[in-house]
This record gives sequence, structure tokens and C-alpha cells, in this order.
Amino acid sequence: MIKVTVTYPSGEDTNFDHDYYATSHVPLAVKAWKPLRTEIDKGVSGPNVASVQFYFDSMDAFQGALGMPETAEVMADVANYTNIEPVMQVSEVVD
Amino acid sequence: MIKVTVTYPSGEDTNFDHDYYATSHVPLAVKAWKPLRTEIDKGVSGPNVASVQFYFDSMDAFQGALGMPETAEVMADVANYTNIEPVMQVSEVVD
Repeated sequence: MIKVTVTYPSGEDTNFDHDYYATSHVPLAVKAWKPLRTEIDKGVSGPNVASVQFYFDSMDAFQGALGMPETAEVMADVANYTNIEPVMQVSEVVD
Repeated sequence: MIKVTVTYPSGEDTNFDHDYYATSHVPLAVKAWKPLRTEIDKGVSGPNVASVQFYFDSMDAFQGALGMPETAEVMADVANYTNIEPVMQVSEVVD
């Protein structure tokens, strides 16, 4: 299983709208990419304000998702909830 | 639900033994801390070599776990699989 984690590091003069993120942005990404499962994190302590994990069956499924035309709309929506540059990590779930 | 993520950022001259991590270190941490659930990630692309998520019912459960005397043994074991300084993030799972 492939897990794609998008993380928003905290920093000076950064803002992040957690409500918009959970109720509008992530649903938009789910509609575009159709991951198996999604998990949203709100930072309590540590370097990150928020993150999301998208689970996919395979790298092919993830790359296919990212290649969808709707991806442009997802990316353009980031400015609506934060000024933080997101960091993307792709990992294999080991279990 | 509280999710504690421990991340190992990649860098020059770093090493990480994924087998030892999954078969010895994380089981040692699970024995000490008794999380609800654990997930191990092996990095494919992005800033991190590996990470683990420990899920707890509450901040109290997590803090109680970290306060266990076995935590010292878990920390001392890190040198057995990596020279990377782990980064800890505590988050609330939003669903």
C-alpha cells in the first residue's frame, strides 16, 4: 500500500484554516484522486500545523490520480486556506 | 484520537536499517507504550527515510505511555538502526 502524506510546516506569519481544509479542500482532493482512505491531522505539538494522508493500492494508482485534470483545481485551491508551501512524502506502508 | 508521528529525515551520510526498525524497534516501542494501533512507513520519495505513527485514545494516554520506565530502553535502541535524529509530531486526528 502507498501512503502519500502532505504536510504543512509551521513558521512565522503562516496561516492555516483547519475548517476549510477538512470540509472543502480534502473532499475536493478525494473527489479528484479517489484514494482508498484519507486521514487528516491537526497539529498539537511539533513542526507541523496540519497534514493529510492519502492511501492508494499502488504507485500506479497514485500517479494516475495525480495525472487527473482535476489536480489543477486541487492545487489552485491551496491558496484558499493557507500560505504554507506543502511538502509531499510518498511512502510504502510496511505491515 | 491522538496520532504521534516519529519521522526520520534523510540527509548526507545517514543510515537506516528498515528491517531492524520494523521487526525489533517498533515492537519494543509497542510493548512499552501499548498504542491502539501502529503504522510503519518506508520512504519512497520526499524528505523522509522512514516514519511510524502511534495512535492513542487521548493526550493523557500518550503522556502516560511516554512516562513509562521502558521509554529509556526504547530511546537507547535508536542507535541500533540509525544515526538520524528522529522528529516527533503530535497531532489530533480529524475525521
